[in-house]
Amino acid sequence: MENTIKKQTEAQVITPTQFLEHYQGHRGLTRRVIEAFPEKEFFNYSIGGMRPFSEMVKELFAIAVPGLTEIVSNKIGDFDENRNYGSTKAQFLEKWDQDTEEINKLWSQIDLERFQEHVKLFGQYEGTVQSSIFYFIDNEIHHRGQGYVYLRALGVEPPFFYER
Amino acid sequence: MENTIKKQTEAQVITPTQFLEHYQGHRGLTRRVIEAFPEKEFFNYSIGGMRPFSEMVKELFAIAVPGLTEIVSNKIGDFDENRNYGSTKAQFLEKWDQDTEEINKLWSQIDLERFQEHVKLFGQYEGTVQSSIFYFIDNEIHHRGQGYVYLRALGVEPPFFYER
Repeated sequence: MENTIKKQTEAQVITPTQFLEHYQGHRGLTRRVIEAFPEKEFFNYSIGGMRPFSEMVKELFAIAVPGLTEIVSNKIGDFDENRNYGSTKAQFLEKWDQDTEEINKLWSQIDLERFQEHVKLFGQYEGTVQSSIFYFIDNEIHHRGQGYVYLRALGVEPPFFYER
Repeated sequence: MENTIKKQTEAQVITPTQFLEHYQGHRGLTRRVIEAFPEKEFFNYSIGGMRPFSEMVKELFAIAVPGLTEIVSNKIGDFDENRNYGSTKAQFLEKWDQDTEEINKLWSQIDLERFQEHVKLFGQYEGTVQSSIFYFIDNEIHHRGQGYVYLRALGVEPPFFYER
């Protein structure tokens, strides 16, 4: 009986630590996609009227740390994808790395029980903590996939998708 | 103490049922992206030397049901992204819907404890059951994001990303 209970308490589809590794693995790949862009095209290349990749990255910045900060603090913040992070790839990469550390710190403050809690992020996006964070990741994969097309159209080989 | 145990056994970052809903939610969106393509361009439009969207969908077909079948059966199968599913969008959508049902059936055969089990899919891709299935989903989001660029370049409005 004790063994049964032990087994049940340990059985997780994905643990909080694996979930963080999953997120940071994807973020590492997105960082390499930013690096792969030619400097100028990062800010002004687009296809079909879509945003340049730098603008998509500004959206990712507006979601990741601000979203997790809300989850941890339970205080509503602003969703602002037009913040200024500078005008060079190096500045974006510096911000990226700061956020990587910040995400690790915030994650350590989310207890296992909280992942099923209901939240309404930025005062409007409703879901559980887990579905919200998966949305952050999925949205990043989605836009990064678009960045891959930009790179291919520019004749630049993107990083391998399976490398995290 | 009993309450503590109860709470622990119930606390999941994401439950198997939520994980399936997450996957099928994404698959529903990919289905709408297939539907959004003009018939001819689904099979022959591409940017930057990439594959047409139909070829990416053939890759998704090669992964989803064959991968889950391996997880359930523990028998190694072939990874074949060049199977013939017909030459019309309608045929691809029919196969898509068959797979939706098949995925539900296979999923019901994966016990909670199995998600952390080590697997080597198609004789080569190593990971846990959960990391493998997340890879299936992430790979689908990645290619679907590319499909969005194709649609935008073709002047077609893609479905909303947040609609599942």
